[in-house]
Order: sequence, then C-alpha cells, then structure tokens
Amino acid sequence: MNDKAFQDYYPDELSYCYGCGRLNEQGLQLKSYWDGDETVATYTPRPYHIAIPGYVYGGLIASLIDCHGTGTASAAAYRAAGRDMGTEPALRYVTASLNVQYLRPTPLGVELEVRGRVKELGQRKVIVEAEVRAEGELCARGEVVAVRMPEWMKPRP
Amino acid sequence: MNDKAFQDYYPDELSYCYGCGRLNEQGLQLKSYWDGDETVATYTPRPYHIAIPGYVYGGLIASLIDCHGTGTASAAAYRAAGRDMGTEPALRYVTASLNVQYLRPTPLGVELEVRGRVKELGQRKVIVEAEVRAEGELCARGEVVAVRMPEWMKPRP
Repeated sequence: MNDKAFQDYYPDELSYCYGCGRLNEQGLQLKSYWDGDETVATYTPRPYHIAIPGYVYGGLIASLIDCHGTGTASAAAYRAAGRDMGTEPALRYVTASLNVQYLRPTPLGVELEVRGRVKELGQRKVIVEAEVRAEGELCARGEVVAVRMPEWMKPRP
Repeated sequence: MNDKAFQDYYPDELSYCYGCGRLNEQGLQLKSYWDGDETVATYTPRPYHIAIPGYVYGGLIASLIDCHGTGTASAAAYRAAGRDMGTEPALRYVTASLNVQYLRPTPLGVELEVRGRVKELGQRKVIVEAEVRAEGELCARGEVVAVRMPEWMKPRP
C-alpha cells in the first residue's frame, strides 16, 4: 500500500468533504488506498453512530461507500491514464447514484473495512462496487456511479 | 399536520438512531410527518455537511432519505392497520436497501425538504419513494426498501 491516501491528493478546495476531506475537522476523514486491483479503506464508527444500540447507522455505511467509491473512481481514472494522482488537471468525481444493500446488522465498536472494485471505467463515468465488512463478516454491499466533476461545478463562496 | 413526529412515537430503546433518534444528542434528529398521503420532513444541514464548498454532502442526503423512508414505512403500516402510532406491538422498520440518484448539486445553507410516498406496502416490506428539494428545486430522488425489524434484532448492551 502507498502511504498517501487517494483523498490526500485532492486539491485543497476539494478537501472539505464531510466524508473524506482532510480539511473538514468535523468530518469522517475517510482514507482510501490501492491494494492490488482492489481499493480499501477502514473506519471505526464513533460511539454515537447508532442505528439501534450496538449496531452501526445505515447512513454512515452509505457515506463510507459513497466516499470510497468516488475516491476509487478518481484513482482508477489516474491509473488508466498512466498518470500520478495529484497531477493536473485533477480527475475528480461526484456521485450520480448510490445503491446500498444492508445484508446484516453491522456491529458498532469495531473497525469496518470497505473494499472497492472498478466494475466499469468510461471516459466520463466510473462504476465502483463496494463491500463493507466487520470482523470479516460481509455486512453491506453497494454500488457507486461516479461521474467526472463538471467544469461548472466550482466551490461556491 | 400532527404535532408529534413519527420518530417521537418510537420506544425509547429504538430512539438512539443517529439520523432520527430523539435521544441521540449528536444526531440529526430528523422529524417526519404526514401531509395528506405524502410524508414530509425538513432539515437544514450543518455548515460542515459539505461535499464541495457551497454544496451538501451526498451521504447526508442519503441519511435523510433513509430515516424518512423507515419512518414513513412505520407510519404507513400503522395507518394501514388502523392503529395509532405508539400502540403496542411497535411496528418498526429497518433498511434493506437504499438507492439515491443525485440529480443536481444541493445548495448548502438552506432548509431541505424530503417528501415520501408509499410505493408498495406488504406484510413485511414497505417500499418508499423520496424526493429531496432545496428552494423548490428537485435535487435528489431515492427509494428505500424497508423491512419489519426482526424479533431477534434487539439493542445490544
């Protein structure tokens, strides 16, 4: 694994994402990495990320899949172009659609592992499949359709 | 509209949900109500619920749809049974799957409105469609497949 996460290559103005921006102090600061042809991120939910006591909130699981998905899309686009992440122009992705299947209740209090795989990589669109595990058990499966961030979508003051 | 939200009828031990539990102090505390045959909830994202600066984080939108969906499922099941919410046995739902389409960037700094409609209501499963609007503009559309909370799924100590 590379020491630097995908999200650490994002330009500053795109690093305020609540899910994965390194400059969002209240956010989750998810970090995603290559692991061979797969991507991986780990996250330990906070004690208050509750669905019912003892289990992880589904919206948090959706958030992890979302950010790991767009991060994976970006990394895969750079890799396919034979470019290093962080080189200009930035290849950044936003979520067009997100699908999550909750397969079993996810226990709270342990680290979750999110694994991503690129299912389809086009010029403008990347589809990423993701799985979320707790203690080795598959708890949720998801799919992110990520599209290149349009030029007009700039940070708003 | 009734003054009491769907979520205010949930039993105490099921009221710690990060998205909608009235007893989760760090949570979003989403409140859903009937409005004719539709259901409605409003939420103003916090300043740090950022995707890119000026726009709302997609994982938050997914969370609003999730909790409004399971709340709508519960309310619709009570209504179909001709029962008042809060009567025993509690009809509570968990999310089996969640689908969100992000139709346009959602502006941060304004109140969001989430509307739900019951698409299908079975014995064990309720499908809820949801739309999220900012200043009247449709920003996201989602679907929640909610299933009756299984008996064995109790809060864990």
